[in-house]
This record gives sequence, C-alpha cells and structure tokens, in this order.
Amino acid sequence: MGAMSAPASQFTLGEIAERLKGELLGPADRLVKSVRPITAAGSEDITFLDQPKYLPLASQSKAGAIIVSRATRPLEGPALERHALEGPALIFVDQPYVAFAQLLELFFPRRRAGFGVSPQATVGEGSAVGAGSNIYPGAYLGNRVRIGDETDIFPGTCVGDDVAIGSHCVLYPNVTIYQGCRLGDRVIIHAGAVIGADGFGYVQKQNPDNPGEPVVHYKIPQVGIVVIEDDVEVGANATVDRAALEVTRIGRGTKIDNLVMVAHNCQIGCHGLLVSQAGISGSTTIGNYVTIAGQAGLVGHIRIGDRVTIGAQAGVTKSVPDGQTVLGSPAFDAGRARRALALFEHLPEYRRKLEELDRRLQKLEREN
Amino acid sequence: MGAMSAPASQFTLGEIAERLKGELLGPADRLVKSVRPITAAGSEDITFLDQPKYLPLASQSKAGAIIVSRATRPLEGPALERHALEGPALIFVDQPYVAFAQLLELFFPRRRAGFGVSPQATVGEGSAVGAGSNIYPGAYLGNRVRIGDETDIFPGTCVGDDVAIGSHCVLYPNVTIYQGCRLGDRVIIHAGAVIGADGFGYVQKQNPDNPGEPVVHYKIPQVGIVVIEDDVEVGANATVDRAALEVTRIGRGTKIDNLVMVAHNCQIGCHGLLVSQAGISGSTTIGNYVTIAGQAGLVGHIRIGDRVTIGAQAGVTKSVPDGQTVLGSPAFDAGRARRALALFEHLPEYRRKLEELDRRLQKLEREN
Amino acid sequence: MGAMSAPASQFTLGEIAERLKGELLGPADRLVKSVRPITAAGSEDITFLDQPKYLPLASQSKAGAIIVSRATRPLEGPALERHALEGPALIFVDQPYVAFAQLLELFFPRRRAGFGVSPQATVGEGSAVGAGSNIYPGAYLGNRVRIGDETDIFPGTCVGDDVAIGSHCVLYPNVTIYQGCRLGDRVIIHAGAVIGADGFGYVQKQNPDNPGEPVVHYKIPQVGIVVIEDDVEVGANATVDRAALEVTRIGRGTKIDNLVMVAHNCQIGCHGLLVSQAGISGSTTIGNYVTIAGQAGLVGHIRIGDRVTIGAQAGVTKSVPDGQTVLGSPAFDAGRARRALALFEHLPEYRRKLEELDRRLQKLEREN
Repeated sequence: MGAMSAPASQFTLGEIAERLKGELLGPADRLVKSVRPITAAGSEDITFLDQPKYLPLASQSKAGAIIVSRATRPLEGPALERHALEGPALIFVDQPYVAFAQLLELFFPRRRAGFGVSPQATVGEGSAVGAGSNIYPGAYLGNRVRIGDETDIFPGTCVGDDVAIGSHCVLYPNVTIYQGCRLGDRVIIHAGAVIGADGFGYVQKQNPDNPGEPVVHYKIPQVGIVVIEDDVEVGANATVDRAALEVTRIGRGTKIDNLVMVAHNCQIGCHGLLVSQAGISGSTTIGNYVTIAGQAGLVGHIRIGDRVTIGAQAGVTKSVPDGQTVLGSPAFDAGRARRALALFEHLPEYRRKLEELDRRLQKLEREN
Repeated sequence: MGAMSAPASQFTLGEIAERLKGELLGPADRLVKSVRPITAAGSEDITFLDQPKYLPLASQSKAGAIIVSRATRPLEGPALERHALEGPALIFVDQPYVAFAQLLELFFPRRRAGFGVSPQATVGEGSAVGAGSNIYPGAYLGNRVRIGDETDIFPGTCVGDDVAIGSHCVLYPNVTIYQGCRLGDRVIIHAGAVIGADGFGYVQKQNPDNPGEPVVHYKIPQVGIVVIEDDVEVGANATVDRAALEVTRIGRGTKIDNLVMVAHNCQIGCHGLLVSQAGISGSTTIGNYVTIAGQAGLVGHIRIGDRVTIGAQAGVTKSVPDGQTVLGSPAFDAGRARRALALFEHLPEYRRKLEELDRRLQKLEREN
Repeated sequence: MGAMSAPASQFTLGEIAERLKGELLGPADRLVKSVRPITAAGSEDITFLDQPKYLPLASQSKAGAIIVSRATRPLEGPALERHALEGPALIFVDQPYVAFAQLLELFFPRRRAGFGVSPQATVGEGSAVGAGSNIYPGAYLGNRVRIGDETDIFPGTCVGDDVAIGSHCVLYPNVTIYQGCRLGDRVIIHAGAVIGADGFGYVQKQNPDNPGEPVVHYKIPQVGIVVIEDDVEVGANATVDRAALEVTRIGRGTKIDNLVMVAHNCQIGCHGLLVSQAGISGSTTIGNYVTIAGQAGLVGHIRIGDRVTIGAQAGVTKSVPDGQTVLGSPAFDAGRARRALALFEHLPEYRRKLEELDRRLQKLEREN
C-alpha cells in the first residue's frame, strides 16, 4: 500500500518557487533534495518558517532554502535580501505552512499502482470501475457498485451493493462500506473504518399477555444510508452509522480522526474536525467549521452551531449556539468552565474554611 | 452486502393489519407502498403514532393509513371512526412503535443471496455449514467450524478454529471470531468487530538475580473463550475479549453499540444496552436489563445489579445495587450527582462568598 | 486461528518442577492434566498460590499440586513438609504467578499451522518470508516486505509495501500495517488493529483573494513511519498513526490494549501499559514503565516521565514528572485529586452551609 514513497527526486529552487507560486530570492538553479525541519536542514534541504517571530532562526539555518511568509518581506526587506545572498535562499509565499504541505506532496508523491482491477478482487454484477482506478487483490465490490476514476480500493476492503464512490478516492485496507452508501470525490477512508453499519435503534417490546416476561429490545431496521461528501477524510477504525430512515451526512471537507463514532441520523457540517475517540449520539446536527476535541461526547438530538469548539473529554448535553467554546462534563461556556475547573482541586481547603468560619461564628454568637 | 434493499413492493391495508395482528378501521383493499414519518406521509404511505398525545396529528395527516395504539380506541372511539372514513385508515395495535419496526421489515426485507459457500471462500477441514447459509468470497472459516442454517458470513470475515455459530446469524464484513468462541442464534455482528482476542493479562516478572533489570510484563496465556448468547447484536469495531481461563459471556438479547470494549472474564446479563465507546474492565459482572450509556467506563471486579442505569461518561469505581442510576466520574447516585454537577460551575462564586464571609467575620471580630 | 488449543497432554510433577526451575516437595511421578483455580482444582489438576497470606487455602485444597513461593518455605517449613505428604504436592518457585503463566503455556501450547505461504495469500514482488512462517489464505503482503522466521500472518491481514516484520510475531486477522512500518521480534498484533495510518495533520488554508471563501483543512502528507519494538502487544482495533516526518515509536515490551489510540509522532517508552480506550495526542512523549489506565486522554506535545501512573478517565493537560500518579480531568496529583473528588458530592451541603453562615453573620451584624 504505497501511502508514501521514499523521496523521488530533486528540484531546483526555480521549479519549487513556480510550483508554490512563490517569489524566489536566491539562485534559481540551486538543487534541493528533501524537506526537513529548520533546525535539522542542511544545504541540500528546503525548510519553512511559519511565523515571522521565528525569523531569527533563518539567519542561523544551514538550509538550502527557506519558505517564508510574503508578509515578512516589507518588515525586514533589506536584511533579508542581504541574508539571501549569504545564506539560505528565501521563497516568499502567502501561507508557508500550506506551502510546506505542498512541498511534501512534491517530494513524497503517492506512488499509485496501475494494474486496474486485480483478478484476485471480486466484482459483483452490474458494477463499474472508472479509468485509472485500482481494485486490489482481496477487495470485494458487491453488485451495482459505481467507482469513479483514479480511485484505489485496497485489499480486504468490502464495498456493499449499490454503493457509489467518486473519483480520486482512497479506501485503505479492511474498510467496510455497507450497502447503498455514497461517497464523493477525493474521499480518504483509512483502514478498518466502517461506513453504514446499522444505527443503534431498538424499541422495547413487551408481551401484554405475560407482563412477567422480559422486555426485549426489538430491532428497528435501519433502512437509511450514509452520504460522505467531497474531500472528507475518515480515520482508522472510525464508524459512521447509516440513518434509520433517511441519511447520515458528513459535510464537505470535514476530517474525522481514528476511532470516532458518528451515530445514525447525524448531520455533520462542512470543514469540521472530529478528533480521535469523540462520539456523536444519534440525530445530532453539527454546523460548519466545528471542532470537537478528543474523547468528547455529545448526546443525541441536539444542535451544535457553526464555528463551535468543544473541548477534549467534554460531555455536551444540550445545544450550543454559533461560535461558542464549551468545556467540561456536563459542558458549559469555556471561560467559566476553566475558572471552575481551576478551583476544583481546592475543594478540601474550602471545606476547611467553611468549618473555620463556622467555629469563629459560634464563638461570636456565644459572646454576643 | 444487502443490509437493506429498496422497498420491494406494495401491500393492502388488510394484509398489513393481519401481519401486525392489528384491527383495521378503513378500506382493507387500499394499497400502500412505503413507510414514512407522519409529517411527510402521503396517500400511498403508511405511518405510525407512538403516543396518544400526538393523536391530533392524525387528523391533519395525508397518510394512507396510520398505526395507532389499541389503548387509544376507547378514549376517542367515535371521533376516530368518523375520521377513518374521511382520512387515513387506522390500524390499532398493542405497541405502535413495535409495529413500525415490523412494517420496516415488511417493506425493506433483507435481501439474502443464495449461493451457499462461495468458491472464493476458504473453509477448513472438518467444518460444516448449515442449509441456506452463505459464505461470501474472501470469508475464511478455520478447521472444525460449525455454522447453523440461514447464516451469512460476509467477505473478509475470519472465523477461527473450533468456533460454533448458530442459525439466522449475520457476520458483516471484516469481523474476526477467534478460535473456540461460541455464538447463539440470530446473532448480528457488525463490520470490524473482534470477538475473542486475548484479554489484557500480564504478570510482572522480575529477575531476582539482577534487581536492576527491568520488570517486564509477562503474558498470561488467555485460554478461555467468549460465549455470545441468542439475539445479541454487536456494533462495528466493538471488541469482546476471551476469558483468561473460563468464559466471557454476553447474555441473551443484549445489544452492544460500536467501539464498545468488554474485557476478559466479564459476565454481561440479558437484555442490556451497552452504548457506543463504553468500556467494561475485566471480571466485572453486569446484571439483566442494564443500560450503560456512551463513553462510560467501569473498573474491574465489581458487580452491577439488575436494572441499573449508568450515565454517559460515568466512571464506575464500585459495585452498584439493583435498580440504581448512577452518574459522574467517580459515579454515584444520579439524583445527588445531578445536584452536585449543577453547582460545579458556581465554584468561583462560592469561593468569593467564602472570602466575603471571612472579611465580614474579621470585621465583627475586631469590633467585639 | 489457533490462538489456544485444548489441553494437549499430561505432565508429571517432576517434569513440571524442572520446567519451572522449581523445587518439588511430593511425588515426582504424580500426573496432572490441567491448570485450575485453587478452589476448583482436583487431584489431577495443578494450581498456584500467589501470596503467602492465602497459604491456609493450601491445606484445604484437593489439588494434585500447588505452586507456592520459595519465600514461603522458611516461614512454615515443617508444617508444609508434613502437608505435602498428606495433601497436594508443593512446588516452590520464585514467582508463583509467573510460574502459573508458564504452566498455561505448557498445558495450552499455541498450535501453529505449518503450511508456509498459502497459495491463496498474495505476496508482492521482492518480498521474503522467513523459515517456519505461515501466511494464511487471504493475507496480503505488498512489495519488498520482509517477514522473519516463525511468524504468523492470519487471513485478511494486509501488510503494505516495504514493511519489515521480525521473527516469532503474530498478526491476527484483519490487521493493517501501512507502507514502510517496522515491527520487531515477538510482536503480537490483535485483529483489526491499524498500524501506520496517516496522522491527523492539516493546515488551515485560506484564500487571501477571497476572504469570504471557507477556510479548508489542507492535508499535510504524513511521510513518516511507525516503529514497534520487540515484545510489544497491540490490542484489537487499536490504532497507532505514522509520524508526519519521522517516527512514531512504541518501546520494547509495552502492552497496548484494545481500542487505544496513539497519535502521530508519539514516543512511547518501554514496558508500559496502555489500557483500553486510552488516547495519546500527537507528539507526546511517554517514559518507561508508565501505566495509562482506561479511557484516559493526554493532550499533545507533553512529556510523561518514567514510572508515571495515569488514572482511568484522566485528562492530562500538562507534563508529568517521573514517578507521579495523577487523576481527574484535568488531571493532577492523585492524593489531592482523591480528596477533592471525595468532596464533590457534598457540594450541595457546602452551598447550604454558605447560606447558613451568611444568615448567621447578618444576624450578628444587625445586632452589633
């Protein structure tokens, strides 16, 4: 599974500046061969500085080139120009950290196989695989599956009947997509993730003729699906359950970390971050640009607004309006929560203080 | 993987009433084609009303038929009878929500394949597969495995040596059942779940000849098994570990959600609900009809009584008697826990109050 | 999957004493056939007593033999010698619990298949499998994979390109090892675990030409690997992410339970215990001999010292020095945390006490 290959090649600073739409200050024909942190980079490496405050590091660096923010230039122009002649070349870009990610793409391109549909894969009736897609040995596609172009389905991954998957997707090994679910373009699903398992829905069934007989949990068939929109990434062993009747939805650009649980009927907005081991209970709606930190849990049937941040291990028991940050279990406004949490460890001294005040009061009361 | 198919067909209200053992008020030959929520249902849909208090919705509904509680009839008999002539037909049943689940089974039958044992499956020596069972391509059965009738083993699922699985079970893709475990009838295991991995058991081994040498965690072989009784459902990527020596048991009718962890030697009673990401430590015993909410954790070697409810994110550190509800971490009685949790955010003002009382007391003390 | 087989055979006490390097007091030719708890053991069973305080149980036991601590002998020598003539034989060892684990290995040997590389496995170009290793049907090895001797790769397990795995390892079914990762010797990976998925790394990308356009999470390629050292065990459905640039490392002898999450760039020391559902955020460093209890969470970029213990459900927000025990969320020193947690449920009475003191003060203030 070629997630990443070893560095493929070398590039001139001119090529790199062009690729990053950056402005080069230094020799365009200088070659660099790898990307390394600024403290470790040597003369054949390129590195980056995300924040102007770290700029002094640049003058000590032995790197062949440094990516820096365009905003830096007017601030320290002459010094920088002098520097670029003596030390590392500089490439000015709008967002150095983004440029760093793009550099990694350049130096570590994902090496894709080109065998098409392996004879050791199983492909059901009426299924179609787009141009340039690879279906690895041991992958299974059910009936009437649609796979777009340039998509990779790795070994052991199982795609149920009537599933549609877009183009430029990667489904790593041992993923399961249940029947009828739909994935957009450029979706990445990491190993072991499960999309579209049954929601946890039961109705308590009693036997009125025999009240002594146990109540049993009678399964409610889960006949909805999961829709995963474009540019979503789902982490290893995460689970997203199918809706009871309609659609569980993961909005465009949202990133889901390992071992996260999204329950049935949830509507997750766009460009969110759901960090590892977070859990969202059924029928909860989440807005856009929401961050849910690790191990946080949300009850069902609530609404989380846009641009909300939920702290790690928070237990969210009610809806949260747009823009708020919440912490704690049960969770409330982060500012107040931080103050309360900071006092928690002082409870023993508060109790002692209460006892002391009581004694002093008793003394005064006796004296009065 | 045909979890659910598209609606197969249409039914007359007479057929439906007979299937649900309900009483029909309205035209027996009226056809309905799907099941929808009451607010969305049209003249070719059937819907349901779970609680009598929502009955006013019935008179505004455009549904072809509504499932209502038999208990409703004497309350509003004449009005209902008039209504059934003009609007939706009514079908009286004992438990409308159960009837709704049964309607979904009727309209969305699980479409089972009928190919038997795929030639692309692996079946070990001495294994036997019952009538009507399907072993999908890429599934693996070890040696001496027993599979009952009408059971489906999906692709990528691996069943170890000497495992016994009952009839009418479904093992979704990429499930692993370790050697020697036993599953009853009508058991559903969702994708990626792991039954029977080794319990987390080690003994600290020291080298008395060399006290400076590190203590190592020496593995205790886990030679027990897991027994999963009839009608249990296990969620995606959940894990139930094999016992050290004897049996880890999941009692009849208990439902386990995604990403739940049940450790070695646990004895889980019947008809329980273990909600997503809950974790039960080793050798803990859980009674019948117990609900453990999401992300709750239980320490090992404790006993949870019958009909106990454990709140979300609770941390249960000691045994809980029958019928109790507990909350918090560490968990205690829910009523008291709710009162304490509600005060938590006021800690800063209590501290200020303490300081204020102290100042006022000092003033009095000076004056006395 | 022969995790454990049924008891294979019987052994004389002489054979057992020799194997355990123990000293036998009793008949060397007595046969025992199984290992059972002391309360259940019969004359053909062998059992053990871990702690001298339980020694009185020995005199009532019907076991064929009991493993006891060598330290016991001088304490109760004559009584024991008399006992061993009348009742169970005694075998004195340094660490009875370790001897118990070794007895289980003896009576329940892991029965390994001996077929080598199955023709139904897929093995890529340039890959090499050592002597005595088994690659099961449906397992997948990518290109340039190295597998040592006597290692088992179970069905459905997928090993990416350029992975190196040592000798005497077991990879249970449906495990995924991503490209380039390295596993030492005697490593056990349980079913469904995922080693080397991409770390959760994104940079917020803005479009400066169009500030109204949404910020998107731009993926930072994760080009590092995971290194798992000798004697590590990883539980079912646990996940260990590959580093962004360098190495995520699990130190020698560390044991990881089911559903644990280790994020990218973490450095986990040797001989640690990470209990089920614990989560370690990115770039955190953990020392040696650390225990992290169930469902605990650690933020990123902190350092946990050697011999630290982190309590269940703790939320660790800052570095912890060597040897400390922490509890709570946010976590602090366990002694203080226990005192504060014990007072938590009394918050309502403290509030009432505050109100009472206020009233009594007001009364005094009025009277003064």
